[in-house]
Amino acid sequence: MKVGSAHYRTIWVAADGRTVRIIDQTRLPHEFVVLDLTSVEQAATAIRDMWVRGAPLIGAAAAYGMALAMTKDPSDAGLARAHDLLMETRPTAVNLRWALEDMRGVLTPLPTQLREAAAYARATAVCDADVEMCRMIGVHGLGLIERIAAQKPGQAVNILTHCNAGWLATVDWGTATSPIYHAQAAGIPVHVWVDETRPRNQGAHLTAWEMAGAGIPHHLITDNAGGHLMQAGQVDMVIVGTDRTTADGDVANKIGTYLKALAAQDNGVPFFVALPSPTIDWRMTDGVRQMPIEERSADEVSFVQGKLADGTVTRLRISPEGTPALNPAFDVTPARLVSGLITERGVAPATREGLAAMFPDLAGR
Amino acid sequence: MKVGSAHYRTIWVAADGRTVRIIDQTRLPHEFVVLDLTSVEQAATAIRDMWVRGAPLIGAAAAYGMALAMTKDPSDAGLARAHDLLMETRPTAVNLRWALEDMRGVLTPLPTQLREAAAYARATAVCDADVEMCRMIGVHGLGLIERIAAQKPGQAVNILTHCNAGWLATVDWGTATSPIYHAQAAGIPVHVWVDETRPRNQGAHLTAWEMAGAGIPHHLITDNAGGHLMQAGQVDMVIVGTDRTTADGDVANKIGTYLKALAAQDNGVPFFVALPSPTIDWRMTDGVRQMPIEERSADEVSFVQGKLADGTVTRLRISPEGTPALNPAFDVTPARLVSGLITERGVAPATREGLAAMFPDLAGR
Repeated sequence: MKVGSAHYRTIWVAADGRTVRIIDQTRLPHEFVVLDLTSVEQAATAIRDMWVRGAPLIGAAAAYGMALAMTKDPSDAGLARAHDLLMETRPTAVNLRWALEDMRGVLTPLPTQLREAAAYARATAVCDADVEMCRMIGVHGLGLIERIAAQKPGQAVNILTHCNAGWLATVDWGTATSPIYHAQAAGIPVHVWVDETRPRNQGAHLTAWEMAGAGIPHHLITDNAGGHLMQAGQVDMVIVGTDRTTADGDVANKIGTYLKALAAQDNGVPFFVALPSPTIDWRMTDGVRQMPIEERSADEVSFVQGKLADGTVTRLRISPEGTPALNPAFDVTPARLVSGLITERGVAPATREGLAAMFPDLAGR
Repeated sequence: MKVGSAHYRTIWVAADGRTVRIIDQTRLPHEFVVLDLTSVEQAATAIRDMWVRGAPLIGAAAAYGMALAMTKDPSDAGLARAHDLLMETRPTAVNLRWALEDMRGVLTPLPTQLREAAAYARATAVCDADVEMCRMIGVHGLGLIERIAAQKPGQAVNILTHCNAGWLATVDWGTATSPIYHAQAAGIPVHVWVDETRPRNQGAHLTAWEMAGAGIPHHLITDNAGGHLMQAGQVDMVIVGTDRTTADGDVANKIGTYLKALAAQDNGVPFFVALPSPTIDWRMTDGVRQMPIEERSADEVSFVQGKLADGTVTRLRISPEGTPALNPAFDVTPARLVSGLITERGVAPATREGLAAMFPDLAGR
């Protein structure tokens, strides 16, 4: 998408054909900084420390991390080491595993001297495929927005989203935001309620920045406010992303998503999840029991990052010194609360049968 | 309750018999500052700007605000002016109206020269009654905790609370926290999940400070985390306070409470609301349709207050410059989601009949 007048993806290869470039998402919205990654270790740090985040982008960054590894050590041992290093960076997003298995599958049969070039080509293909999947999510999601818009002509469709499932979470377009960008392009008035998404405030830092950049009307709200807005009839639909969706349609996403799904159900508001198929974990069924939920540093809860009046970007402690905190990073929304899964092939029911019917070539893998 | 080794209430009269003293709750947990209020205008500012907050304490502060007004102008016009000034400070907490009507009812029949003394006496009586009501809420709530403790001998009872319904929200003891303090005194192991409670972070700033001061085990969590913890079986009960409960048992409380009530219901976790009877609005029935919901400044969402590494207390902008925000301060939890109302007379069902049976002398007023 555009940043100012220039078009950016969230990850790309520099003119030298080797260096991988990313937007440092820990610096937004206050600073727009592009970082160079030149080793698999840096790529692993970028994922672990959330310089890049969002399930599809984690997958893309892992693919390029494998390519960076092949520039240094294309041996079988180097391949295994890079795979394992990257695999342990984040536990919940299944796109990480998907991308690493894909890369390993492509590279393993090749002689070592061909692995570097093949790795870059494959990582670029992973990225291009993600862009196309996200574009198609927008095409299919647009239909859902159009249906609501038809019921309230002349009025904006109010869409609530949680965390950032925008273009910054993918290579381009975003998942949850792609239908919104497509609606804007189609001339449908939309207004977005942006959950701030504590503890890391990806909504306030990233989604609000994206919406402003695209000129889409929006309001930032606390994570607490969505239920009240739904009770007041101010939310027409919810669209969120996901870090892993089970074969039965249970949805892992940023902590707090489950609460919005409950409120949506209680108020008859449709609750959609947008995802490319690599986010589906066909080996997992019961999300509430089986999903690995990352527990991140308590400091993310005890401190908040932002900008001082003098422009300095820093962090503040919000709790008393010594207050213990717990920081589960994701929760699972049971499939029964999900109105539909917006995929690159269409909107599937959040059921085993619904997903299997849409992805007969992938289901059961 | 104790602050260090000294016992404090949240509001009291200084040795001069006129000056009203409060703890400045906007400075906690980083600084403990006592402020003097010497005029009704200051009392109104203290309520409006949340130097004092919490429905019972708002009522107490309004009562003392009337007393301060009587020191300057005890005429009927002065009485009316003070009443109206204080009434418009906060719209949701019904204790404000209750205290002001009580004070007006006591003072109006009196000759002007007796009003000042009577006002201080009545305001002090309002405070003493609040302390006793909160103590009895603890006695009745203790029974609920004991029942859960009996089902898991040797293990801590995990109690989730939202916002601050602690002693800082009342004159002493607190509403939601009084059962917790009583359980601690009774030797029942308890552990408290403290919702940080954006946007003003009363949980992180006040409840965490209270729990640390009382030596009660606790963890700070984001407002997003409670649903996941309930799914994981880590919450045995929820206890929250309320700013206004309708005659039918609908509960207005700090924004986000409704989301926790939904999660509690979805996971079979009992959800209790602790309140003294002045928090019941016998004239209101349908909370979702009728409750006045205060909308506060967007700055509360766009900025976060806390302490820098060098000890400076300041605020940070978390969103891009110019991002619009919406800040509804309360939501309504429908009675159907409430397991019981812990009052000074016992635990009432959250129904019109349940409340009327417990308060036959008040119901229908």
